[in-house]
Order: sequence, then C-alpha cells, then structure tokens
Amino acid sequence: MKWSPKPLPSLPCCVTHQRAGYSSDVEMESTSFVRNIFNGQLVPDNVFPFPSALTEEETQSLRALLDPCTRFFEEVNNPAANEKLESIEEATLAGLKDLGAFGLQVPEELGGTGLKNSQYARIVEVVGLHDLGVGISLGAHQSIGFKGILLFGTPSQKEKYLPKLASGETVAAFCLTEPASGSDAASIRTVADLSPCGKFYTLNGEKIWISNGGIAEIFTVFAKTPIKVETGEMKERISAFIVERAFGGVTSGPPEKKMGIKCSNTAEVHFDNVKVPAENLLGGLGKGFKVAMNILNNGRFGMASALAGTMRGVIIKAADHAANRTQFGDKISNYGAIQEKIARMAMLHYVTESMAYVLSANMDMKVTDYKLEAAISKIFASEAAWHVTDEVIQVLGGMGYMQEAGIEKIMRDLRIFRIFEGTNDILRLFVALTGVQYAGGCLKNLQKSIMSPLGNVRAILSEIGWRMKRKVGISSGFSLRGLVHSDLDSSAVQLTKAVDLLGEAVESLLLKFGTRLTDKQFHLKRVADAVIDMYAMAVVLSRASRALSLKLASAEHEKLLCWTWCHEAYERVKANLRAVKSSTWNQSCSNMKLISHAVVQNKGVYATHPFGF
Amino acid sequence: MKWSPKPLPSLPCCVTHQRAGYSSDVEMESTSFVRNIFNGQLVPDNVFPFPSALTEEETQSLRALLDPCTRFFEEVNNPAANEKLESIEEATLAGLKDLGAFGLQVPEELGGTGLKNSQYARIVEVVGLHDLGVGISLGAHQSIGFKGILLFGTPSQKEKYLPKLASGETVAAFCLTEPASGSDAASIRTVADLSPCGKFYTLNGEKIWISNGGIAEIFTVFAKTPIKVETGEMKERISAFIVERAFGGVTSGPPEKKMGIKCSNTAEVHFDNVKVPAENLLGGLGKGFKVAMNILNNGRFGMASALAGTMRGVIIKAADHAANRTQFGDKISNYGAIQEKIARMAMLHYVTESMAYVLSANMDMKVTDYKLEAAISKIFASEAAWHVTDEVIQVLGGMGYMQEAGIEKIMRDLRIFRIFEGTNDILRLFVALTGVQYAGGCLKNLQKSIMSPLGNVRAILSEIGWRMKRKVGISSGFSLRGLVHSDLDSSAVQLTKAVDLLGEAVESLLLKFGTRLTDKQFHLKRVADAVIDMYAMAVVLSRASRALSLKLASAEHEKLLCWTWCHEAYERVKANLRAVKSSTWNQSCSNMKLISHAVVQNKGVYATHPFGF
Repeated sequence: MKWSPKPLPSLPCCVTHQRAGYSSDVEMESTSFVRNIFNGQLVPDNVFPFPSALTEEETQSLRALLDPCTRFFEEVNNPAANEKLESIEEATLAGLKDLGAFGLQVPEELGGTGLKNSQYARIVEVVGLHDLGVGISLGAHQSIGFKGILLFGTPSQKEKYLPKLASGETVAAFCLTEPASGSDAASIRTVADLSPCGKFYTLNGEKIWISNGGIAEIFTVFAKTPIKVETGEMKERISAFIVERAFGGVTSGPPEKKMGIKCSNTAEVHFDNVKVPAENLLGGLGKGFKVAMNILNNGRFGMASALAGTMRGVIIKAADHAANRTQFGDKISNYGAIQEKIARMAMLHYVTESMAYVLSANMDMKVTDYKLEAAISKIFASEAAWHVTDEVIQVLGGMGYMQEAGIEKIMRDLRIFRIFEGTNDILRLFVALTGVQYAGGCLKNLQKSIMSPLGNVRAILSEIGWRMKRKVGISSGFSLRGLVHSDLDSSAVQLTKAVDLLGEAVESLLLKFGTRLTDKQFHLKRVADAVIDMYAMAVVLSRASRALSLKLASAEHEKLLCWTWCHEAYERVKANLRAVKSSTWNQSCSNMKLISHAVVQNKGVYATHPFGF
Repeated sequence: MKWSPKPLPSLPCCVTHQRAGYSSDVEMESTSFVRNIFNGQLVPDNVFPFPSALTEEETQSLRALLDPCTRFFEEVNNPAANEKLESIEEATLAGLKDLGAFGLQVPEELGGTGLKNSQYARIVEVVGLHDLGVGISLGAHQSIGFKGILLFGTPSQKEKYLPKLASGETVAAFCLTEPASGSDAASIRTVADLSPCGKFYTLNGEKIWISNGGIAEIFTVFAKTPIKVETGEMKERISAFIVERAFGGVTSGPPEKKMGIKCSNTAEVHFDNVKVPAENLLGGLGKGFKVAMNILNNGRFGMASALAGTMRGVIIKAADHAANRTQFGDKISNYGAIQEKIARMAMLHYVTESMAYVLSANMDMKVTDYKLEAAISKIFASEAAWHVTDEVIQVLGGMGYMQEAGIEKIMRDLRIFRIFEGTNDILRLFVALTGVQYAGGCLKNLQKSIMSPLGNVRAILSEIGWRMKRKVGISSGFSLRGLVHSDLDSSAVQLTKAVDLLGEAVESLLLKFGTRLTDKQFHLKRVADAVIDMYAMAVVLSRASRALSLKLASAEHEKLLCWTWCHEAYERVKANLRAVKSSTWNQSCSNMKLISHAVVQNKGVYATHPFGF
C-alpha cells in the first residue's frame, strides 16, 4: 500500500512510546491521546489522571486575579452598550487595561501579567461568560494578534513590541485571510519582496475580515516571499512579518457589519508598498505557514474555555426560567422535555470545560503534540455553545427571542466561532487526515518491518497480535483500569471498545482506499465525529474519576454526566464507524454527490415544484 | 388497561375506514396518515398519489397572480430597509394592498382574492423566499388574525369585518398568549363578563407578544367566560371575541425589540373594561379553545410553504458560492464536505415543500383530520429552514456572517418559527399524545370487542391477526404496491416496515405504562421523532413516484432525494423505537432527570470546576 496523502504537508510518521521499537522510521514519539487512537492505541498519559499544571502559588495568584476580573465584568462592562456602540465603551477599555487584560500571557518583565495557559483559560472563561464581543477583541489582540511575537519573536522584537502591547497602548491584529484565501491559507497572494540592499521588505496585498483590523497599530502579516529551496530554485514561500501601521502604506476599511460580536472591530487591511525592516521578519524566512498554524493551534484552548464560560452563563438563565415558570399546573422543570434539554446543556458544558482545562494543562506541561486535541476542543466548544444557547432560547420560549433576555445576542455572537480560525468543517478534515496519515505511516512501518531482516521480531509480533485480535473482535487489551474510578468501569470499557473499533475502521479504510482516502470527505467526517466523541469520553472519564476519588460534593452528579455522555457517545461512535463500512451508507454518499451536483448545476433547487412553476 | 391521558381533552376514539366495523365506539373515521400509523396501520389516502386540489382554471389564475407577486418582491420590497425601519416601508405596504395580499383567502364577494389553501401556499412561498418579516406581518393578519372570522364568523360578522380587513384598510391580530399562559393556552386569565342586560361583555386582561398588536384595529381575543355546564354549575370556559380598538379601553405597548422579524410589529395589548357587543362573540360561548386550536391548525400549512420558499432562496446562495469559490485548487462544490451539506439542504427542502403541498391540498380536499400533519409540517419546516440556513452560512464561511450577504438576517428571522404558534416541543408532545391516545382507544376497543358477545368476530380476528404478525416480526401486510413507483420499492418497504415497528412500539408502551405514558416525555419525544420521519418518508415517496410516473426532467434527481432521505430516516426511526425499549436508554433518561434536577436546584452548572473556583 502506498500512503502519501495530498493536501497536508508530510507529517512525521511515528509510533507511540508504548509500542515503539520496531522501526527506524520513528521521528518522534507522541503522547497525543487523539493521534494514537487512530492507530487503535490507547495512550492515556495526557488525559489520565486529570492533569493540572498549577502550583499552589499559581492557583492563589489566579484566584486573586479572578475576583476583580469577575467584579469588573459584572459591574463595569455593559455588553448591550458595547454592542450598540459597535465598540467597547471607553471606560471599559480603560478598566481592562488596568486589569492587565491586554497582556495576560506576556512575561511580567515585559509588562505583562505572565499567566500560564491554565490561568489564562480561567480568566477568559469569565470574559466568555459575560461578553464574547470583548472576548474577541482581547483574543484577536493577544491570542493571535501578537502571539507570534510571544512564540517566535527574537529578544529584541519582544522587547520592542510586547510592553506597549501588554499595556494596551497598542493593539495587535492577525492578518492571514484574503479574498481568495480562507480555509486554504497557503494560497495567499500578499507578497513581500526583499530590497536589493537587504534592509527591508516591500509588502503589498489585501487582507479581509481582520479582527481589530481597523484599530490595530501592530499587525502579524503573512506574505509570500521568494526563497531559494534545496534544489537551488527560487520558490514562493510564506513568511510572517511584524508590521506597524506607522510604517506607512497601511490602510484599513470601514468596520464590517456583522451578525454579532459587533463591539469587536472587523475590517479589511491594505498594504500598499509598505516598507518593512528586514529585522521584522518573524520566525524565519519561509517559515510563515508554520508560524501561522502554531499561533492558531496555540490560541484554540482559550476559545474552548471562553465558550465554557458562555455556556455556564446561559445555563443559569435556563435553570432560573425552568425553576420559576409554571405551565399546565407545574413548574416546567418537572417536565421531561425540559429536563432533557437542561441535562444535555449540562453534559455539553461538562465536556467542553473538561477539554479546555485538559488542553491548557497539557500545554503548560510542555506536551508538544496537542494540535489534534486543540482542533477538537475548538470544534466541540463552538458547536456545544451554539447548541446550548439555542436550547436555552427554546426553554425560555418567546422571552428567549426578545433582546431584553440577552440570549439572542449571545447566539449571534456565537455563530462566528464555528467559522473563524479554521472552520469546523476544515478542522474535522484536519483531524481525520492527520490521524489517518499517522495510522497509515504506522501500518507502512509495520509492513516494512515485516519485510526487513533487521525487524524487531518481538515488537512486530506484538503489534500483529493486537491488530489481529481487534480484527476478530477481541479486545486488543488496552485498558483504563487503575486510571478510571471503578464506579465508571462500564463507561471506561465503552471507550476502550471504541478505540478498538476506530483502529480497525481506520485500518480497513486505509487498506481499501489507500491514498484515495484523502479525498473521501464523507468518510473522513464520520471518522472525525467518532474521534471527537471518543476524546470527549476520555476527558469526562478522567474528570469524573477525579471527582469520585476526591469525594467532591458533586461527584455523584459528575458520575451521571459521565455515564450518560459515554453511553450516548459510544452509540454514535458505533453508528459512525459502522456507516463507513456499510454499502447502503456508501450508496447514500454517492447519491448525495449527485444531488449536490444537480443543485449546483441548476443554481438552486432542481426538483420540479409540485405545481410545475 | 385503563387509558385516559391527562393533558388533552378526550379525543374521539376511532378506527380507520379500512379496518372499521368491529366496535360500536367508532365516532369518526379518519384518513389521517399520521393518526393511523400510531396504530400500525398504513392508510395512504391523503398522501398517495400526490394530492392536487386545483382545477386547471385555478392553476392558471394562481400563475397569473404569482408573476406580479414575484416581481413585486424582487423589485419593490426591500427586506434590509424594512428591517432597519422596524416596519414595512410605506410604498411596499401600499403595493401589498394593491396586490390583494391582505385578503388572499377572503371570498371575492367580500373583497378578497378568494384563494384556496393550495394557491395561498404558493403565494406565501414567494413571500417566505424574500422577506419573512413581511410574511409574519401578513400571516399574523390573515393566517391567524382574522382567520377566526373566516372559519367561525356569522354572515353578518363576515360582512362587517372582512372587506376592510381584506383590503388592508384595517389590520388584524390574534390575542391568545398572556404572561402566565404560553404553551398552556387553557390557563389564560383575561376575562369577559356578560352585562346584566345581555348586550355586551366587559373584557379585562393583558396579552403579550402579539404580532401586529401595536398596529391592529381588529383583534381576535380569547377570554374566560362563566358558563353553565351540564351539571348546572357555573364554570369558566374560554370564548373568542372580535374586538375593535375603536371600542375603547384597548391599548398597546411599544414594539418589542426582537432577534429578527423586526419589521413585524410585536406588542403587548391591554384590555381595560372594554365593552364588546354580545354579537361579537365568535364561534359560540365557551367554544374559544376549539376556535383557537382550529385557527392555529388551519394556519400551519402556510408556515410550511413560506419556509420552503425561504430554503429555496438560501439554497441559491449556497449553490452560487459553491460553484464559484476556489480553495485548494478546486471549486469547493467538488469537495465531499460541501456536497453533503448541499445534498442535505436539497433533501430538507424537498421534504418541507412536499409536506406543505400535501397538507394544503388535503385541506382543499376537505380532509377534516389534518391536525397532526399540520403540526408535523410546522415542526419539520421550522427546523429544516433553520438547519438549511445555518449550513448555508457555513458554506459561505466568513461571508455568511456578514450582514451584506443577507443570510444572517434570515437566520435571525427564522429563530422564532420553532417557538411561536405552538413551540416545537409542545407540538411534538401533541403529536405523540394524540397518536398514542388514539392507538390506546383502538386497543381498548379491541379488548372490549373480545369481551363482548356481540363483537364482529371476523374483524376481531383480522385485527388480532396483524397485531400478532407484527409482534413476531412478520410484516403486517400493509403495502404501498401500486402507489409507489417500482423504482422506489425498497424505500416503500422501509416505510411499511417502519409502520410495523411504530405500531408495535406504541402498543408495547401502552401495555407497559398505561395512562402513565402521558407523563413519559422522553419516550413521547422519540415516538414523535419517529412519526415525523415516517410522514416525511411518505410525502417524498409520493412526490418522487409522481415525478417518475410523469417522467419529469428531475425524476431521477427526485428518486435520489427520496431514496437517500428514506434510507437515513428509516435508520433514525429504528434507532428511536429501539431506544424507547432499551434498558440502558431508559437508564440514560433517568440520569438526565437527576442531572437536570441538580442543575435547577443549584441554579446553574453543578459540577465542580476543575480548579474548584
């Protein structure tokens, strides 16, 4: 089998630390839970036990910061007023700067608050609970706007830019998207040409939908640069630059009129012969794509915790209404139809919050391979928050549709989260493609090892052993015993069975389609959905186990959340993985291709109207 | 088994015309497809072949009306301007009146356009395609506002009110909802007391969220009236009244600020000692609940066709974008992820449009029992339009979130359709409760017949026969042969199998829970979902069969839509009906009750935060 998927740059092939040893191709070991389940392997390290990366002191300093932050959002910030103004009120902006909210992760020696990711997550949870518009303004500034400087900046770049950015004296923006380049970030057309003297780049291009684009002074801009590749040829590669509005030639359009997050400025930004000093190159010549992806990967954990905050806020409204509204002679909280909605809200919130804090803790623990978990957290959080808020409106009925209830604004704000910083559709494909590519690499290594006289026979036999077991429906032997509380054994077994099913399904798909699997987006979506459900099962198993072990007051409640989530998620996993192998499902997908083709060709509905006109 | 569900007034028990004859309890025969499948019986009359109620002449007059209507909405009406103005532009309003749009179903001799339901459906489809805000204004006026006068008015009431309402000289509103009475319409507190002289009623009360409430001159108002019941006691019963603002004592609040349909006026209406002449009683003293339910049932078909129009409109935008947007070197219409979205849009639209025109034709054919089909059409259309529009935004990506694309407004407009005129949650329960009550009645009749020496032995044996067959998994023998095109045989078999499964599941639930089934909302929801899917299967089987028989250009496309829909719907039906009998699913529901209880008690999220604070 040949395995070299197309759209993604070749990823390092690797096997896990548990099973390593039989191949010389191993370039890295990954403890990523998600990456490894594609290969049918359960590597619990990053998830079990529930990770925490804060010292007692760090926890205390977070707590000290959290109280004024909460008070500020309750007492000073006014979401409705910000929305109406289409920018953040002056006093609020000043207050945010005083709180240090513009430089939460900038080191203290550079004027920032110096928070770890876990601490940052907890703070933005408060922001997300109160005002997503403010959240986007702050996030566009520090989560992506100047994150490149934090991650890739030279000491002098950091010293020059971070202090003013951290204080909020200057605002930052992240400039990647262009009219012809959305999901396909590599296709940007903005160019940066090095001057003959080598002292500056001339930047030309147009960026769209840039958060803070109309108010920022500092831009992280991605542009094509000619670069000499290994063969000696000149090729265009993306590079990142720190660009000041003050350089001249930088103009921005009027604020875009959006569905929501109206207080957050969104605008086009034009670069017209902008002279960028050569020392403002960020992360190395031709390394821009990597810089961009790293910034985005690194920024996603904050979105998950912010949206966990949003959910927490709207669930309060649903609980309040359900407890106080009487219809048909009873509080509506006593009706099954309402109970199911509220229980689902609680489960979706529980999963999202668990993902957010596992991810941020992993990042603080210096786990390097977290991009799949970050993508899943972004997908899950944005869809969970959307669904929860939608259901809160439904619980409130007519009142939920009124502006005064304050929920319809949240719903409008939320709609962009499934689109920006990687649409959920593209991220699903990213998760699935990265995973199957990894699994394909492992399979290829196994095949190679079997052919090689130098293969480690014991390792080969071991791997063949669990693959064969899985194939014939016997558990491959991975277990969460000792990591999951015994009260949740049945749910843990569901997860381990799901991992077997996934490994087997991915292997079958690889053997059936080979490299063509890359193009099988119907299949990849189901695989991604299954993986998302499984990661969700893992994080809640870990968290509920912790609650049970610590005998928290909410332990029994968390057990119910976990049991119920795992039960339903496992059913979905089975259905999704059964589907990709079913011939009727495959027929259904072929039909959908034809249906879509007809609609696109016909420029709309193609079925004949019942009346014929 | 005792069977007397609580929340609904006792419904006439009946068996279908196909199986009638064994019982003296038969009060009516119903050809309702939906009602009968609850009893496991397939009565195709109203759905197969695809019904049409228009004569050639009526079709031609519809066509003549459709062209200017379409042109008007394309050339004169400006949805964005209406929204900004928070009312319909003057010139547009005048144009709508000229078109006869305010009295589409008022008889011509009373100044209306005199349309049948099928014709009305086609016209409002155009309105729904262009501007849901205008649609609500017109619908609140004629679909519910004065529909009571059309359906229940005396000749003199009709003569007095309809001409001015039809011309748009006066606007009507439907006043049912009150602060403490939403879904529970029977709990209204507005009262109307007859004067000692018997000449007028004094009306007092407060209505909220009344569409057109701030601009209407004529109100259909529901109020409690004391009435002598059979026992001689005085009881409060609801009565309906035609109330003029000119009577005095009628005041309305400021326009509510809403998420969408902003050009449609929504306001509180207060009745303060309003003197309503006794002759303005509508539909008889104490008959108000029936009047209200009939108006709402009667109005739902228009919502389905309007939303079919909305979907048709947004699908054009998705098709256009998918055909023209290039990413990763290819038009995005060539990617499976986009194809699946567009295909699902096409299927959801196909089902909705089919439901809308089956229902309106049934009403024109004087089918009397259509309330379950009307409820399902409202549920399905409002959820389909929401989902389709949401996915169109996703296909358009960032552009979909911008106001200039015009889709986010549609999404905001759509959110109310799942709430008003019966929330979808309540309507699901209504469908399931009515259906299981009917099935319970049939079962009770069978039990009685078996006990009675006068029972029709042949009918009893026949019924026991198919119930037994079903119980042991043999097809009960209902078939769609001859009604469904042979190309769709496999889909037709899925529907007949689904009917067997439903009949068996409902019977099991009735035998297991007896009258307590009324309170089992988790179960009822799954039953309703299964029934909705099955009715959707039926209408598309009928429509696609028609297309194939007529050899329409789109016949093969419609076959794909039907096949694919039925395949997926059947899987969902099986899953839902399997669930209600599964012990783990029942455990899951018990858990959700506990989870919800904890959240409500705790006034929000109860799980302990990972940080403990």
